[in-house]
Amino acid sequence: MRVLQLAVVSLMVTSACLAQRGPTPFYEDTNNIPVSPEIHADHTVTFRLFAPKASEVILMGSPGILEVIKNPMPLKRDEKGIWSLTVGPLPPGFYTYGYAIDGGLRMPDPSNPNLEMRRWGPTSLFIVPGEEKAAVEERRVPHGTIHVEFYDSPNLNAERMVYVYTPPGYESGKQKYPVLYLLHGNGQIEASWTWTGRANVIMDNLLADGKIKPAIVVMPYGHVPREIKTASPAPATGAGDAAAIEKELLTSVKPMVESKYRALTDRNHRAIAGLSMGAAQSLSIGLHNLDQFAYVAAFSGGGNRAEWEKADSAVLNQKLKVLWLGCGTDDFAFNGVKGMDDLLTQKKVKHVFNPSGGGHSWPNWQTYLSKYAPLLFRD
Amino acid sequence: MRVLQLAVVSLMVTSACLAQRGPTPFYEDTNNIPVSPEIHADHTVTFRLFAPKASEVILMGSPGILEVIKNPMPLKRDEKGIWSLTVGPLPPGFYTYGYAIDGGLRMPDPSNPNLEMRRWGPTSLFIVPGEEKAAVEERRVPHGTIHVEFYDSPNLNAERMVYVYTPPGYESGKQKYPVLYLLHGNGQIEASWTWTGRANVIMDNLLADGKIKPAIVVMPYGHVPREIKTASPAPATGAGDAAAIEKELLTSVKPMVESKYRALTDRNHRAIAGLSMGAAQSLSIGLHNLDQFAYVAAFSGGGNRAEWEKADSAVLNQKLKVLWLGCGTDDFAFNGVKGMDDLLTQKKVKHVFNPSGGGHSWPNWQTYLSKYAPLLFRD
Repeated sequence: MRVLQLAVVSLMVTSACLAQRGPTPFYEDTNNIPVSPEIHADHTVTFRLFAPKASEVILMGSPGILEVIKNPMPLKRDEKGIWSLTVGPLPPGFYTYGYAIDGGLRMPDPSNPNLEMRRWGPTSLFIVPGEEKAAVEERRVPHGTIHVEFYDSPNLNAERMVYVYTPPGYESGKQKYPVLYLLHGNGQIEASWTWTGRANVIMDNLLADGKIKPAIVVMPYGHVPREIKTASPAPATGAGDAAAIEKELLTSVKPMVESKYRALTDRNHRAIAGLSMGAAQSLSIGLHNLDQFAYVAAFSGGGNRAEWEKADSAVLNQKLKVLWLGCGTDDFAFNGVKGMDDLLTQKKVKHVFNPSGGGHSWPNWQTYLSKYAPLLFRD
Repeated sequence: MRVLQLAVVSLMVTSACLAQRGPTPFYEDTNNIPVSPEIHADHTVTFRLFAPKASEVILMGSPGILEVIKNPMPLKRDEKGIWSLTVGPLPPGFYTYGYAIDGGLRMPDPSNPNLEMRRWGPTSLFIVPGEEKAAVEERRVPHGTIHVEFYDSPNLNAERMVYVYTPPGYESGKQKYPVLYLLHGNGQIEASWTWTGRANVIMDNLLADGKIKPAIVVMPYGHVPREIKTASPAPATGAGDAAAIEKELLTSVKPMVESKYRALTDRNHRAIAGLSMGAAQSLSIGLHNLDQFAYVAAFSGGGNRAEWEKADSAVLNQKLKVLWLGCGTDDFAFNGVKGMDDLLTQKKVKHVFNPSGGGHSWPNWQTYLSKYAPLLFRD
């Protein structure tokens, strides 16, 4: 797995080069940075931190690692001041973690440059490889392109960004493609579905295996406003933002995408999906705009129950080719999503409910995308 | 400045939404995270860190902040365990920094989600605004697109990435564009020139002001291999990689770009530039391939002196429309670059030497790009 392989890079300097590498600034003193995390052959994982004067170092999760270790766990100090802890073996997958030092200081792992960027700061991540190449693992198949688009939003009176994936071959052809709008969760950003979730890798692999129709994937920003907070409390998005995000998607993002990309623009070639907060956004936007979306999915999040109670089941069944719900049984959102499944069943609305193991974390969202994408744009 | 504005986001939750926000995991406990950095109206900057049991917290630089504070400086602890330090006033610009805790633990600022991603880990960054909109500041002008391309390199037997900027209007037209290859420094990555250096913003602004010809900018990866190291020592690139990077640029990156993008392919419409390690690469690649590049620039780095001593001045003067060197007088690379200037002067090779204030840091590289780009593709 590319981002996690260790490479031996020898330090070669020739005096003939006038200036290639300067004196090491204080911040770059890496003499005491231990290897961390070390993923062993048996899939145990060792975490390490050099913190000689700390009195306590605790391994913490974002949900990813906490689902495995269940509770924050202390590292133990050796005589050199390196703290360490080995956990697992861990199932193959995608894990996020960080440290708490002395009860107050929270930080990602300074040994690990692989980070999940979030709206309120980064968390460390690593991958435990599986025996088969995982859906999220890069393979030497044709690759699509990620486009970072900057656009001016009159609705929000702001510059916004949107990530757009085009499938391999897009540049050389003339055909038009269906479009999947893919929404992130609370605290995440436009880049989350690609840089952390690897949606582009998943789509490349599914396409190489003949499992999906080639499609454009549009990943907008799901918060209003865009600004990154530089301190607590972490920003949350509630119902107050939902209407603004819906308007932004339909009146700014969609027209920009449909004018700049070779996109099919009928409802049968337009899908939406989202994770967590994005699941709620996807369900609302889909329900409010049945004339525009034939495919709707919610990963690890439910919708506005009152709205769905009022909806006409016959109309939903006529309009929606696929209505898809997925949630992990360990996910705090499970009861809510199960309640949504029950409501739809009671209303006789055709839908797929995909309960799975695991919780509120990337391995599930990646799996759900892998299951939902093959159902899209089949006729 | 978008990334640095603070926004008041009220926490709105409606019980009608089945699952929008879960319980706060341990890692996300942001109760004690203070605002940091706080950029005051007078351009002093306050750094803060909650670390109640630490015995020492030191403000460190990458070169950016160290050029101002000169030496690592200690923060002072208050009764609540929050350490703080105010420095400056700082000149408008772009600063990177981090903390050292208790002599051993190095970390970016956990309050600040704005990071420079590097090959060996992240460092925190902030911007002190100027009175005028800086060259690097987003303005509401037409924006180009950043493309993230994944390609298979037969040379390196690996998957590689390259960032490609296309100017505004690229999608809707049919014209072909000149190409600038823009190389990063040691430890940096493909994303550095855009996500940290904001080359796309600089190009958008220069184009909006009528100062440059529209161009494609290609930002490849400058190390072999690609892998991110997860521990010390930080990887360095010396002359051993230079030949491989040159071959990769000419036989993998350039053909991919010229087949996938509407690129002009004659030497008069092809330029190269790089910073630090990339400066040395740019000078070598330019010198070795005068039939392919009419414009060569080196930002804060010199070239292989022996090679340039041997070069034929008449050929250089005939082939190179612009040969451009820039370096800060506080930069550790200054004497090397000045030596290159002296050599070229002695050899009567036409060139521009742009010494400036400042050191080995982004504000200079951004300024140099702003000065070099307007000279390109003028005939």
